[in-house]
Amino acid sequence: MPQFDNVSVVKQANIYFDGKCVSHTVVFADGSKKSVGVIFPSQLVFNTGAPEIMEINGGVCRVKLAGESDWKTYKAGERFSVPGNSKFDIETMETLDYVCHFG
Amino acid sequence: MPQFDNVSVVKQANIYFDGKCVSHTVVFADGSKKSVGVIFPSQLVFNTGAPEIMEINGGVCRVKLAGESDWKTYKAGERFSVPGNSKFDIETMETLDYVCHFG
Repeated sequence: MPQFDNVSVVKQANIYFDGKCVSHTVVFADGSKKSVGVIFPSQLVFNTGAPEIMEINGGVCRVKLAGESDWKTYKAGERFSVPGNSKFDIETMETLDYVCHFG
Repeated sequence: MPQFDNVSVVKQANIYFDGKCVSHTVVFADGSKKSVGVIFPSQLVFNTGAPEIMEINGGVCRVKLAGESDWKTYKAGERFSVPGNSKFDIETMETLDYVCHFG
């Protein structure tokens, strides 16, 4: 199963939106961070600080980026990018298993 | 924040009990494994293969080990041990943030 090697993992979970999103932070040797997590079926709005790439490894969602009018569907094996200091609407139809790449 | 260093992390989440429990597997250099996860408020029965030590880093639960009649309460900073090939009842009152040590 794919994994990240030679990393640090923060013990404490990140719990957002009353548990609809749960992730753990992974820190790489160069100081960069990613998070590995899940989003349960829901309709949520995420705000970004750093730019993000959301890598979908399981599940199905629809996403609408700030300033766009169309929703796009993403499923396992796909990814989408979000600018920094922005936000996106995400409707999760089947529980998402994701990796979020920051920066 | 406490973290595990020089480890591998499996990208894919482990989702149990319809999402009441979510964890990620951490693999150490010696091949040993732990999982970092959360358990949302619920009443569940977990079966063990290897012996487990559950380290509670947040939340509150009550636990009854197989063959015991008493429930014991555990909260952040505490831990409990479960024999291998056994099971335990766990009632989570406040979302648990945990590390499970195997073997």
